[in-house]
Amino acid sequence: VSELVVAANRGPSTLVKQEETGAVVGVPGGGGLAPSLAAAIGQGETEAVWIAAAMNDLEREVAKSGVVAGGQEHLKLRFVDVAEGTYRAAYDTVANATLWFCFHGMFDAARRPLLDRRWREAWEAFRVYNAVFAEAIAEDASEAATVVVNDYHLPLVGRLLSDRRPDLATVHFTHTPFPTVTELAMLPRDVRRELVEGLSSFGATGFHTRRWEERFRAAAVANDVAADGLRTFAAPLGADERRLSEVVASKECEARLNELDELVGDRKLIVRSDRMELSKNVIRGFLALDELLEQRPKLRGGVCMVARSYPSRESLPEYLAYRSEVEHLAAVLNERWSARCGGRPPIVLAVDDNFAATVAAFRRYDVLLVNPIRDGMNLVAKEGPTVNERDGVLVVSEEAGAFEELGEACLGVQPFDVSDTAAALARALEMPEAERRRRSQVLRERSVAQPPSRWFAAVMAEARPNGAR
Amino acid sequence: VSELVVAANRGPSTLVKQEETGAVVGVPGGGGLAPSLAAAIGQGETEAVWIAAAMNDLEREVAKSGVVAGGQEHLKLRFVDVAEGTYRAAYDTVANATLWFCFHGMFDAARRPLLDRRWREAWEAFRVYNAVFAEAIAEDASEAATVVVNDYHLPLVGRLLSDRRPDLATVHFTHTPFPTVTELAMLPRDVRRELVEGLSSFGATGFHTRRWEERFRAAAVANDVAADGLRTFAAPLGADERRLSEVVASKECEARLNELDELVGDRKLIVRSDRMELSKNVIRGFLALDELLEQRPKLRGGVCMVARSYPSRESLPEYLAYRSEVEHLAAVLNERWSARCGGRPPIVLAVDDNFAATVAAFRRYDVLLVNPIRDGMNLVAKEGPTVNERDGVLVVSEEAGAFEELGEACLGVQPFDVSDTAAALARALEMPEAERRRRSQVLRERSVAQPPSRWFAAVMAEARPNGAR
Repeated sequence: VSELVVAANRGPSTLVKQEETGAVVGVPGGGGLAPSLAAAIGQGETEAVWIAAAMNDLEREVAKSGVVAGGQEHLKLRFVDVAEGTYRAAYDTVANATLWFCFHGMFDAARRPLLDRRWREAWEAFRVYNAVFAEAIAEDASEAATVVVNDYHLPLVGRLLSDRRPDLATVHFTHTPFPTVTELAMLPRDVRRELVEGLSSFGATGFHTRRWEERFRAAAVANDVAADGLRTFAAPLGADERRLSEVVASKECEARLNELDELVGDRKLIVRSDRMELSKNVIRGFLALDELLEQRPKLRGGVCMVARSYPSRESLPEYLAYRSEVEHLAAVLNERWSARCGGRPPIVLAVDDNFAATVAAFRRYDVLLVNPIRDGMNLVAKEGPTVNERDGVLVVSEEAGAFEELGEACLGVQPFDVSDTAAALARALEMPEAERRRRSQVLRERSVAQPPSRWFAAVMAEARPNGAR
Repeated sequence: VSELVVAANRGPSTLVKQEETGAVVGVPGGGGLAPSLAAAIGQGETEAVWIAAAMNDLEREVAKSGVVAGGQEHLKLRFVDVAEGTYRAAYDTVANATLWFCFHGMFDAARRPLLDRRWREAWEAFRVYNAVFAEAIAEDASEAATVVVNDYHLPLVGRLLSDRRPDLATVHFTHTPFPTVTELAMLPRDVRRELVEGLSSFGATGFHTRRWEERFRAAAVANDVAADGLRTFAAPLGADERRLSEVVASKECEARLNELDELVGDRKLIVRSDRMELSKNVIRGFLALDELLEQRPKLRGGVCMVARSYPSRESLPEYLAYRSEVEHLAAVLNERWSARCGGRPPIVLAVDDNFAATVAAFRRYDVLLVNPIRDGMNLVAKEGPTVNERDGVLVVSEEAGAFEELGEACLGVQPFDVSDTAAALARALEMPEAERRRRSQVLRERSVAQPPSRWFAAVMAEARPNGAR
């Protein structure tokens, strides 16, 4: 049993069996919060377990035998085995195709959500998936242990745990935005109530910013979930400077930086880095470059945009369609502009998953464009300024959580407004050196203000017995 | 000059030249509010003029010569001539492809709105279009005249008039919903402010229900438009019983009713009637029938859905795409079910514009399905019960303004929830006669509570000098 239980859909690493030795080892993922978090927890003094869904056969095998070593001294891993059909329905249909779209305000409402009988079956699967996690937590947690549950995949665990283990101190943290009352009302009446009640049944419920926290409190009121005694908080996550420094110091990153230098040449460099994701607003970002080149002939041949985009959720048709639109648009714009840009295509779209190359791009940018239509926090907006070596300018969407914190040190854009985005890029490219330096110093300070270790300690400190309400 | 000026994008009738006599006559449109309103105004005692945009060459010709007779004793017509390119940009790009989608919460946010340089040019055209109307109103209105401006096409007229003619008593009425603060924030900062300020510059601003009224007041606060002294009101429009009775009494309607009787035969009849419009939610309506037939084998062959859908806004690709999806889905479902429904296709989709046939369907339905994803009022939900002859049951979306008024007399549905809609249809089809009768009596009373003439009087009474604030 463990004194600290972390639960999330994904673990901090993927288990693989080494061909030569047959040993089972964890291979950490590239970007994201999980590796930083695992390091912070593993270096703590508490015996901790991280519970995640088994994603491959090996993990399903390990799931049967209980916890395994997590590659960190005080952190073990436990995989829960959810039947494939149940997992796909819960993860694809409910979590990603419904909740993610709802929370980011991006349903194409004339067509989605489509809440029919099949969707109801998926919702039942989502309940099972949450129950399997709750069961594993209840088994692994020592008396009065602290339980930190992550994200929109596991909102129902709070209610299930408060029935079964009222001794536990629990906290839920949502890494996405939280929707408005009107957006949430696109879900069935009973479903949205169960969701809000599930979240409010944790000892505390956290978000990256006050804005999402307030929306959650409004949702509790609108859905008749008792709001008195509701414990909510905002804890903004910062960049992990230590981990980023390690990548910066690596030969791999140096090699990628040299490649990038050669590619960019004497041009100014605009960088973006996202999952290939509808909320990230890649299309309007490219169109802003198009408008910029149209409006400012002097910039033609003098600027290039490197878009690093790693494939995401390709089991959903929405993501495949979006990827093909993004790739098509990049090709169209490069055809339109290459000849007028000295034969060099102004857009370089790299669809891959290479964290060293991403960090190299962060070091090298003159302008970093982060223009999501909505984003819980957006760590890129903090990781970039943390390692950038050119006093680069940050252009960031007013709908990203990061904007609330970075404020006047960045250039804010209305993400649906391509012209506004183009104008901000122009201003960023033309910004005097002194102003850039002043801004980038502020950005760096604010970006690392609450690194993952400190953020996690803040979240843990909010945990309370579920029975306390 | 006139003591009463009504302004709207469309007039109550379309001008055509009779081939034989060469006389210019107004041909009234089929459904909608305008004909009822023109009758109410024309029979009043005030000299009135209705100002609308010229839609054809004849109207553009007439536009030059000032007002023309409107076919009603005290109502004249005036057409304003807006250049074709300006009109298309203002009407298609801004009013219909942007404001309509924003107000109904149905942007596919990853892709629309796309607020680029071309959109900005369209916004300039929208300003010109509003200014042309304001100019015509200022010219035609007598000292201290009353001005009633209709709908989301003309929000900027208030500000323009309050500068030029502070003597006028003005009122604006929005027939659509009003968006939430978050939805409105998808428009550029300056644009949404100009919009809200324009509306609040009228002497009063009205909506069909309190819900939209309250959203408008919230928008004023959120966009720093002074809310003190802001005059707003809700005036729900009812069905025009007199005009409907005329249609019911017509031979044309009788003939359509006989055709319908033959088509339906011994089956129960579910009717829907909408413009071919994304907000009307035709797709989920068909899918609800699909789920109903799937879940209740006994209903197969015993029920049919007649969907009357008149073509709308076919100059926008969104509408053409939606129409083809609707037609395709109807064909797919008919293929799926016909053989199991005694060879009779369960869906009859009639894409045309025939008001007599629509009224015939209203008379004949057992169940009327009105399931928009959002709707300012939805008159179908009131016109149906007004003329229905079978104590038919009304199933209506909770997001339609009409739901607020008709309340427990109808069956409410969450419009995104296909299963909920299917269950409501089942309940409606199985409802005991006594309950149907009781409900339909209440529905009829409430539907005609505020006919167009009384509604218009209520709106006019709210008009105040713009300078009053």
